[in-house]
Amino acid sequence: MKVLVVGASGTIGKLVVKELGTNHEIIEVGKTKGQYQVDITDENSVKALFEKVGKVDAIVSVAGNAHFGLLGEMTAEQFKIGLHDKLLGQVNLALVGQHYLNDGGSITLTSGSLSHDPIVYGANASTVNAAIDGFIRGAAIELNNGKRINSVSPTMLKESLDVYGAYFSGTDPAPGEKVALAFRKSIDGRQTGQTYRIW
Amino acid sequence: MKVLVVGASGTIGKLVVKELGTNHEIIEVGKTKGQYQVDITDENSVKALFEKVGKVDAIVSVAGNAHFGLLGEMTAEQFKIGLHDKLLGQVNLALVGQHYLNDGGSITLTSGSLSHDPIVYGANASTVNAAIDGFIRGAAIELNNGKRINSVSPTMLKESLDVYGAYFSGTDPAPGEKVALAFRKSIDGRQTGQTYRIW
Repeated sequence: MKVLVVGASGTIGKLVVKELGTNHEIIEVGKTKGQYQVDITDENSVKALFEKVGKVDAIVSVAGNAHFGLLGEMTAEQFKIGLHDKLLGQVNLALVGQHYLNDGGSITLTSGSLSHDPIVYGANASTVNAAIDGFIRGAAIELNNGKRINSVSPTMLKESLDVYGAYFSGTDPAPGEKVALAFRKSIDGRQTGQTYRIW
Repeated sequence: MKVLVVGASGTIGKLVVKELGTNHEIIEVGKTKGQYQVDITDENSVKALFEKVGKVDAIVSVAGNAHFGLLGEMTAEQFKIGLHDKLLGQVNLALVGQHYLNDGGSITLTSGSLSHDPIVYGANASTVNAAIDGFIRGAAIELNNGKRINSVSPTMLKESLDVYGAYFSGTDPAPGEKVALAFRKSIDGRQTGQTYRIW
C-alpha cells in the first residue's frame, strides 16, 4: 500500500515509518523535513500536498501541537494553539485527504491518553485529544466505499521519559513499537471509528 | 446560590432556569436577550460580563453552535464554527469565569450525545462535544478551593423532536426536565470532572 505519513520525522513518526516500511511504500511528509512539506494548519497547504502526491491507500497523521500551561493562567489565544494545530490540522488532513483516498483506504490520526487521564498543565491537550477521538467517531459513519478512519491514543512514550516523565509522574509509559503497531492495525485491518488506546 | 446562566433563553436554558429558579438566584445571560448580553466567542466580551456581574457561586453554559453538514463537503472554515463557538465559547466562560467563582462554586458546560452516538451531518458536533467532555476532565484537576467543573451531555430533547427528529431517527429523546436536573446535580453536589449523560 501507498502510505502517506505526516509527521514522519517525529518520535512516533519514525517508529511508524519503521514498522510500516517493512511491507508498505511510505511517503514521508513533515513541516520542514521529508519528501514533501506541509503546514497542516493551512487547508490550502494540505490541498497542495495532495495535489502533488495524488491518491494514496492510507493517510497517517502523527503531527500537531497542543498548548501546555496552567489552567489558572490560560488565555483563549493559548487555547487556540491546540485547536488550530493538533486538532484542526489533523482534521484538515482528513477533510481534504478523504478525496484522495483509494477505496478501502484508511485515515489514522493521533490523539492521546490525556483525554481521560489528565495531568496538570494539560487541559488544552485533554480537550484536543478527546476532540480527535470524537471526530473519528463522527467521520467514520459518513465515509463511503470502504474508506475508514481511526485514531491512536498513546500515553507518554517510553522514548520520551527523559523529557516528559516528571509531568506524567506515576504513568506507565508505552513502548514506541507498541504505538506503531496500533497504526498498522488501523491500516491493515478493516475497523473504522475506533480509538486504539495504548494505556 | 447566585447562578449565572448563559444561554438562558434557549430550549435547555429555559428549563434550567425553571428548575434552578425554585431555590437559587438566577442571572440570565444571552447573546441578545436576558439581564446581561455576551458574545462567548470573544474573550473580552466574557471578561466584560464578569466585571459587571461580579462573583457567582455557579456558572452554567447552555450556549454555543456547531456546524451541521456532510463530511464529504466540509471545509476548514465550516469546521471552525463549532471550534470557536460551542467549544472555545464555553471554554472562555470557564477560563475567565474560574476567577469570578466563589470557593466551592461550580462551572457546568453543555456537550452532547453525538460525541459517542454520531449522526450524518454531525462530525463537527461529535468533535466539539467530545472536546468539551475532555476539557472538563482536564480542567477539574487544576481548579482549587473546592471549585468544580462538569458537563451535561444531552441527546436530542423531546422538546426538539419536531425540528431534529428526522436527523436523530431511532433516538430515544430526553425529556427536558431530566436534562435540567443534571445541571442541578452539578451545582448542588460536590462532584467534579464528571459528564452527566442524558442518553
